[in-house]
Amino acid sequence: MSKQINYRTECTGEALKTVNAHKEAKSDQYGEALTLYGSNFCPFVQRVWIALERLGGVEYRYVEIDPYKKPKELLDVNPKGLVPALKIGQDGKCLGESTVILDYLEDRYGNAKEKNSYLQPREDPYLRARQRLAADHINRKLLPAFYRYLQAQEPKDQVQLGQEFVEELKAFEKSMLPAKNGGFWDGSDQLGFVDIQVAPWILRADNVLGHYRGLQLDKVFNESSRFGQFKKALYNDPSFKATTSTDDLYVDSYARYAENRPGTSQVADAINSGRGLP
Amino acid sequence: MSKQINYRTECTGEALKTVNAHKEAKSDQYGEALTLYGSNFCPFVQRVWIALERLGGVEYRYVEIDPYKKPKELLDVNPKGLVPALKIGQDGKCLGESTVILDYLEDRYGNAKEKNSYLQPREDPYLRARQRLAADHINRKLLPAFYRYLQAQEPKDQVQLGQEFVEELKAFEKSMLPAKNGGFWDGSDQLGFVDIQVAPWILRADNVLGHYRGLQLDKVFNESSRFGQFKKALYNDPSFKATTSTDDLYVDSYARYAENRPGTSQVADAINSGRGLP
Repeated sequence: MSKQINYRTECTGEALKTVNAHKEAKSDQYGEALTLYGSNFCPFVQRVWIALERLGGVEYRYVEIDPYKKPKELLDVNPKGLVPALKIGQDGKCLGESTVILDYLEDRYGNAKEKNSYLQPREDPYLRARQRLAADHINRKLLPAFYRYLQAQEPKDQVQLGQEFVEELKAFEKSMLPAKNGGFWDGSDQLGFVDIQVAPWILRADNVLGHYRGLQLDKVFNESSRFGQFKKALYNDPSFKATTSTDDLYVDSYARYAENRPGTSQVADAINSGRGLP
Repeated sequence: MSKQINYRTECTGEALKTVNAHKEAKSDQYGEALTLYGSNFCPFVQRVWIALERLGGVEYRYVEIDPYKKPKELLDVNPKGLVPALKIGQDGKCLGESTVILDYLEDRYGNAKEKNSYLQPREDPYLRARQRLAADHINRKLLPAFYRYLQAQEPKDQVQLGQEFVEELKAFEKSMLPAKNGGFWDGSDQLGFVDIQVAPWILRADNVLGHYRGLQLDKVFNESSRFGQFKKALYNDPSFKATTSTDDLYVDSYARYAENRPGTSQVADAINSGRGLP
């Protein structure tokens, strides 16, 4: 476990196929070329990437970024060089923050009139607000619990923080609507806003926390539980699959977190200092 | 300063007039009665309240909540009893989290086609996204800096944390668009989404931090600075004024924070523990 494993510099598996299909800049329906700057293991990038795939027919270019060696092309539009970054057209427009980008993509490319071509229901402001509450809870509670658990070094802390993470997953399960037409958060058969917010960490709970902390997600939540239904729907979703690399990539990439090496990332530093996520 | 000053249980000044004009439940245009549960000194409540006033013609009832003695009426729809809470109709629908409620009010009552009856421009998704980025920055950086400064007890910490708070205000100033048609964040003469997000803490920086920490906001930012233009526009806005009590109410209410008494609030506890805002 103390062997230094290098992080990866490109996607693998299905995600690599998707990268290869998005190497060229093409204009969208507004005549603007979109570029997503991402890093293969970054969960915040995966959120944006899932949304781009999910909205369907959005033209975009994917550019892989080595977070420890940022290219000028990115720094020109985004001086801090954080990913995800979405470059819009050629006039210096660029957005960061995955949740803000999700809203932008929805506003720009979602179509409330066409079935399944939007992430949040426009016709039901109350359901939309409940989705935002669930997403807010994921960002402020579930994610920090994930990183605290992953970065904990003492066995005693690992047990306690593992329990806290599982409690957060249970709170998430409880926030779901009944699985009326499908397993996704809102009980539909179409991946939406809340599913996208949480998806990358469910995957990483399975493979990374499974590998480094022995978490067995499928034992905590059986197949027929509401969470089990959700996870099955998620893992079968085309947009999720198209943006997912092979398990070994995540296991390798998160060794730095699991061993809590200094200077790993802003997220790791924030958790270690006790402050909120950056 | 060590004298225990009791917190207030009702608004004063212009805010009290507004409370008195909203004592009765009336149905909105959808046939649902809205109730805002608030506490007179709470900045998160003021956000929602400003939005209700700003959107114009939205019928609502305001119910003052003593946060240390919560009524059954609130606990029935909102078991944790946190404010702000927005009760919608009589079927148990209720929302919390000021930012989520702002989005709901905009979705439900905003009208993109009518001039000045919306908080965020629907026709410009990129400007909308920039507004969300600015709001996100306020919530994650400016607000925690405000509370760290207010709760600091050692003079040396107060100096350092005061400087950090001013730096955050300067970053906020820098995020503003040029004051083309008015002083508000987007350079217009109409109070919008970002202005509402920050407004309660600008007021409390003036009166509370002014009183307890000697901050002189008008010296840090002169009248003709972009921040000065913003502050002038804000302080002259009818929705802001209608939801603002007299300075003495805030000074009294924040004594508990300024002396960093234990058990003051979840926000105070979070800052003291080093974790993010709850």
